[in-house]
Amino acid sequence: MRISELSDRTGVSPASIKYYAREGLLPAGARTGYNSTEYDEAHVARLRLIRALIDTGGLTVAAAARVIAAIDDPDVPVDSVLGVAQRAVPREVASPSEDALEQVRAVMRERGWATVAGNPGIPLAAAVIDDFAKTGRTDVAELVSRYAAAVDLVAEADLDLVAGSGDRDRMAEAVVVGIALGDALLAGLRRIAQESLSHRRYRGGVVPTDRKEPA
Amino acid sequence: MRISELSDRTGVSPASIKYYAREGLLPAGARTGYNSTEYDEAHVARLRLIRALIDTGGLTVAAAARVIAAIDDPDVPVDSVLGVAQRAVPREVASPSEDALEQVRAVMRERGWATVAGNPGIPLAAAVIDDFAKTGRTDVAELVSRYAAAVDLVAEADLDLVAGSGDRDRMAEAVVVGIALGDALLAGLRRIAQESLSHRRYRGGVVPTDRKEPA
Repeated sequence: MRISELSDRTGVSPASIKYYAREGLLPAGARTGYNSTEYDEAHVARLRLIRALIDTGGLTVAAAARVIAAIDDPDVPVDSVLGVAQRAVPREVASPSEDALEQVRAVMRERGWATVAGNPGIPLAAAVIDDFAKTGRTDVAELVSRYAAAVDLVAEADLDLVAGSGDRDRMAEAVVVGIALGDALLAGLRRIAQESLSHRRYRGGVVPTDRKEPA
Repeated sequence: MRISELSDRTGVSPASIKYYAREGLLPAGARTGYNSTEYDEAHVARLRLIRALIDTGGLTVAAAARVIAAIDDPDVPVDSVLGVAQRAVPREVASPSEDALEQVRAVMRERGWATVAGNPGIPLAAAVIDDFAKTGRTDVAELVSRYAAAVDLVAEADLDLVAGSGDRDRMAEAVVVGIALGDALLAGLRRIAQESLSHRRYRGGVVPTDRKEPA
């Protein structure tokens, strides 16, 4: 197909298609003549992946290029592709205290979690422990431990979604999209569960409106 | 104590102290003479709460004022204080589809979650289901259900932290601080657990560096 059809099929402008090809995210099309290039279904699929990484996952073009390079290198094992994808998702990371880092490591030992160096979740979780301490709460070890037990269930569900995605393109897409959307899904469900449990504890399960859900 | 000492004790500038008093977040001090006002320990504690709500929780001054009004009204039951605090935490909420809302309601029924109208988690979770659909994933019902089971454990830990906080001031603070920080804590722990489980699945538990943690 011509670039105009590829653009129509994917919703990506011809200028962006050329840009992604120049940056190495998209394979070049086949030159079929003067000023004429042919694209195929592989380009459609790859553009879908690029947009999911950038639009939904919030990756920069450079980070998306690193994920795609890992996908395309047959010597990179699948869990390393997943590690590259995980690290590509942007998240502000503070510099946590050594105390807080040790609390995170203690929970990792407790749960038998092994990771490679540079996992972005370790400083992220430790910075939160520091933030709790700044508000005068230094008693969050039990909270962190209970969260970690719950997160084991979340990560199992995440990995099942990734594993059911098929090829390496779709698996990497599921990691990036899943990290970005999963955080928000957890935040939403948590607010619902908090209010429900709050009613049970403080009102014996009575919902203080006429809009009741089955208990 | 004079306003200068209150400012030193709390790290809040005299101008901000006067502003919070004008906006009704802080009770006025006792006038003890021309241009002289006395503050006490209750003002120190209240300023700590105000800063936790605004700085850590991200509340606007108006939202913090609503939370404080609920705390100070003895006719407002404790779970309603918690509901006010929960709704005060800012979070962008999209307009989800009716299909996605019904998926969230189905999970609520499955878990026996009852909430009052206006729980901010319901549109938040539903909008995520819509975002998954936009990336071509319409098969997330099982993921949402498994997340919800894990979130029940998270919310129990949250409510225990709130219940152990003592008075209404500290409970409301724990809700607001806990919502803001808990989302980030979950995000961090989830990235660690994902990588650990990924190694177990795809490498039989072998960690691909020399930096091993006990398995």
